[in-house]
Amino acid sequence: MGMQRTPLLMSTLMENGARVAPHVEIVTATASGTKVLSYQQVHARAHQLAHALAAAGVKQGDRVGTFLWNDHRHLECYHAICSMGAVLHTINIRLGTADLEYIINHAEDSVIIASADLLPVLEPIASKLGCVRKVIVAVDEGFESWQTSLPEAEDYEDFITPHPGKYDWPIIDENSPLGLCYTSGTTGHPKGVEYEHRSQYLHTFAQCMTDAMSLSGTDCIMGIVPMFHAFGWGIPFAATMLGARQVLPSRYMTPDALCRLMADEQITISAGVPTIWQGVRAIYEANPDTYDFSHLQRVTCGGSAPPPSLIEWFWKTLGVEMIQGWGMTETSPLATLSRYAMKYTDKDLSDTQRFANMAKAGQVMAGIEVEIFNESFEPLPHDGKTVGEILVRGPWICAEYYNNPQPEKFHDGWLVTGDVGMIDESQYLIINDRSKDLVKSGGEWISSVDLENHIVALEGVAQACVVAVAHPKWDERPVALVVPSAAGSVEADAVIAHCAEKFAKWQLPDDVIFVDAVPLTSTGKMDKKVVRADLQAQGYALPDLRT
Amino acid sequence: MGMQRTPLLMSTLMENGARVAPHVEIVTATASGTKVLSYQQVHARAHQLAHALAAAGVKQGDRVGTFLWNDHRHLECYHAICSMGAVLHTINIRLGTADLEYIINHAEDSVIIASADLLPVLEPIASKLGCVRKVIVAVDEGFESWQTSLPEAEDYEDFITPHPGKYDWPIIDENSPLGLCYTSGTTGHPKGVEYEHRSQYLHTFAQCMTDAMSLSGTDCIMGIVPMFHAFGWGIPFAATMLGARQVLPSRYMTPDALCRLMADEQITISAGVPTIWQGVRAIYEANPDTYDFSHLQRVTCGGSAPPPSLIEWFWKTLGVEMIQGWGMTETSPLATLSRYAMKYTDKDLSDTQRFANMAKAGQVMAGIEVEIFNESFEPLPHDGKTVGEILVRGPWICAEYYNNPQPEKFHDGWLVTGDVGMIDESQYLIINDRSKDLVKSGGEWISSVDLENHIVALEGVAQACVVAVAHPKWDERPVALVVPSAAGSVEADAVIAHCAEKFAKWQLPDDVIFVDAVPLTSTGKMDKKVVRADLQAQGYALPDLRT
Repeated sequence: MGMQRTPLLMSTLMENGARVAPHVEIVTATASGTKVLSYQQVHARAHQLAHALAAAGVKQGDRVGTFLWNDHRHLECYHAICSMGAVLHTINIRLGTADLEYIINHAEDSVIIASADLLPVLEPIASKLGCVRKVIVAVDEGFESWQTSLPEAEDYEDFITPHPGKYDWPIIDENSPLGLCYTSGTTGHPKGVEYEHRSQYLHTFAQCMTDAMSLSGTDCIMGIVPMFHAFGWGIPFAATMLGARQVLPSRYMTPDALCRLMADEQITISAGVPTIWQGVRAIYEANPDTYDFSHLQRVTCGGSAPPPSLIEWFWKTLGVEMIQGWGMTETSPLATLSRYAMKYTDKDLSDTQRFANMAKAGQVMAGIEVEIFNESFEPLPHDGKTVGEILVRGPWICAEYYNNPQPEKFHDGWLVTGDVGMIDESQYLIINDRSKDLVKSGGEWISSVDLENHIVALEGVAQACVVAVAHPKWDERPVALVVPSAAGSVEADAVIAHCAEKFAKWQLPDDVIFVDAVPLTSTGKMDKKVVRADLQAQGYALPDLRT
Repeated sequence: MGMQRTPLLMSTLMENGARVAPHVEIVTATASGTKVLSYQQVHARAHQLAHALAAAGVKQGDRVGTFLWNDHRHLECYHAICSMGAVLHTINIRLGTADLEYIINHAEDSVIIASADLLPVLEPIASKLGCVRKVIVAVDEGFESWQTSLPEAEDYEDFITPHPGKYDWPIIDENSPLGLCYTSGTTGHPKGVEYEHRSQYLHTFAQCMTDAMSLSGTDCIMGIVPMFHAFGWGIPFAATMLGARQVLPSRYMTPDALCRLMADEQITISAGVPTIWQGVRAIYEANPDTYDFSHLQRVTCGGSAPPPSLIEWFWKTLGVEMIQGWGMTETSPLATLSRYAMKYTDKDLSDTQRFANMAKAGQVMAGIEVEIFNESFEPLPHDGKTVGEILVRGPWICAEYYNNPQPEKFHDGWLVTGDVGMIDESQYLIINDRSKDLVKSGGEWISSVDLENHIVALEGVAQACVVAVAHPKWDERPVALVVPSAAGSVEADAVIAHCAEKFAKWQLPDDVIFVDAVPLTSTGKMDKKVVRADLQAQGYALPDLRT
């Protein structure tokens, strides 16, 4: 044994922030402004929480659910529950009651830590959560009156206050589970991804590399992506390890509230889904002198692909680099990233070429492998033209779902992602679509994402959503839902004409439907499952099939 | 098993560069200029080398010695030998024959890959290296005539040429040994540190973090620190993983040759010991218009502490950040690093305060623990005043020496570093001295490093070396050896008067001795062992003991 066999435990990394940056602030948005705690305070509170949970009977491997916004208490849960060897189950607060009932019982959460204002969401299923022994209620300013029929309800502050601010984190196997995050599929029940200490430790290191998100202890980081969505893309772990200043938006998620917080708190890097950044762009353009984003350097965008026009707008208007990331709950979640500059030869590229690269899903992170395969699982060429199913493997990639193996989602040690795409000669991954969102027309595939990105670049369009509608002759045909921008006006013919500039005739949408909004999933992505179901429920018929 | 159990193997990381940056250059200095290969070429050559070594009987776990400069062939050895599961033993070309004989036999190197011009160094002990079955000779321009009495000598190019450019790296246990590096102690034989795949994988990830060395694929990196010294501080691994442009100085190590290479190749980051950077400063100051360092952003300085005046000079004169690193062969080697900005609160510091921090050994890297202890191994306060023995632990820290356990160098899972120092309230580690280099006078300790740093800041001084000389009354007293700068002149009285501005009377050197140069160790540090021995051999007497 030449080198020490130190297990890779998240407790080691989570202790780092308070050690190096005890007085740096962790800021949570409140009804009247912000609540500011220091790393030292949050650290002590996390240790108190661990003692309180242990006293309440939580043991190593037990699942503890959180039903919380992005706030300092959620961060305390990340620190305490993972470090004490229990399993942090971050429950998606936007799920329907059927899914909530399923996942809480499937995870067998014994304790749930819930925000007071979210208790009504759980109330209809309170009697059906037999595994839940106790609920801890996190109460914010303005939400002091709460009630619940969940058992042994106790105020979070009362729960932790009696306990000491120092807990001795156990030294456990690095392959022990640390977290559980459910991903909502298109069919069947949500599936649980069980993160482990080793996987998240490595993901945290990789995320802090210069060529990944360049996270630094000098940053002021605001994660807008919910902490219940793929562990907030790892930002709570990474930021706490670095001792960076953290700003947490809590429930105050309107574009105006987010923009004010970004400006007032001098955020240097933020992270969210494209709809967040489209909202920021819209409100900034409507009020160009209201927000000072001079400290903002980078925004990370993931969940679904940002339109290239949005990437360019952030760069040209705000001088902000939009870092596109691709991944999913099953990949911890970072798998690829795209930056303004990430190769030595990038210095020779024009801005146009750089934007083209930034619009791709990105370069695979060191340590991870991404490959495209045909239906016989033979690897396909990296020529930027051949489209295949994307598979991923590596030390922070899911090996099986929690108590629900789903072998068809795994192949010979690889995760079958369900996305289809290409890899170009520069090794950029390019996502064509979710395999379920591709439009299959006359034996050929049409990418709904490509059409959306093109349509949204048209003046007067705020958002576009392309879905397949069944057709007796062609199998499926694309239809575009378009949300006009506040100021603009746009005609259906103009949308089609704009698409014809880039796409072949058979790839053009058969119809353009103007809508006020596109339904979103619980993680802020366009919910095409709902769009398709809505069209069907309305008895929608394609133009050439109307009688 | 929630996540994939991918072993952490260096083959994964070493393959990355050629994948993402096949056409980026790897440049080696030659007698007449440079030799330029692409990543793709070096990658193929490394695979050929692995095939050739396997055909020559090298198996997993076998030690292969390298006796090479920093050049592309040495990089190929890093890639091939580690990835194929053999053990890369980087032999220090500056050792004496007794040490060379000892370590080659102790490591039981079966094959040695040696530079043609270095064969004469091995020749006197050729008959004593019974373990060595074969020597591969790397021949550079100007060194075509070589001969050796070592067995089965073969030209490197002839050795690899017949073999295919694709080797299937084995999937092995991540705790398998990957490398061997001997550290020369003050007493006894050199001790071997056996690096493992897991330890170097984690070290590489940590090294590429923004708050570590900020290494990026966009960098042009020149490692001046020899690749036989603590694996070139990990740079060959990190740079190859990232696909950064690499420039290797080979044997052309004069300050002028290094400065020309840095300027011509547009280096963005380099790494070397303080004497290298003092040499660069001296030649730059003597010829201020000769070298264009406009691309240079950072230089990493380790091995021993750079004088604060040197850090400040690089920042103020060249706009270059000198990143101080502390560690040793036993720590892979990075353990702490000091940057111009590494905490959120650093933005509130003045440049003077920042330089003071940069002059400290630095902040411990995430994942590693550094602690100071008293002689009973009780942890000491982090108050910036209390001095203790520095111990380190973590996943890239040595657990025992190779076939030479030395239990007194390890305590309860910690490495006993042999350095003494303090940790301040901001958690900066401050090295006082090697415990063996402290001057013990009248029951109190005097730091030779503190005196040296102060003396070298005096106008007219190029280098200073303070050592202890035995004294019948005080036990030991400090004596300063001073190398005057080329242009300057300085008097002994001025040196003492300058020291008196900062140090107490009893801490002042008893004598100042002017010398042309200070002897250096094989790794470029001042060799105080030799200085002390030389003084003794000359019959040196302290002023108050002269008869």
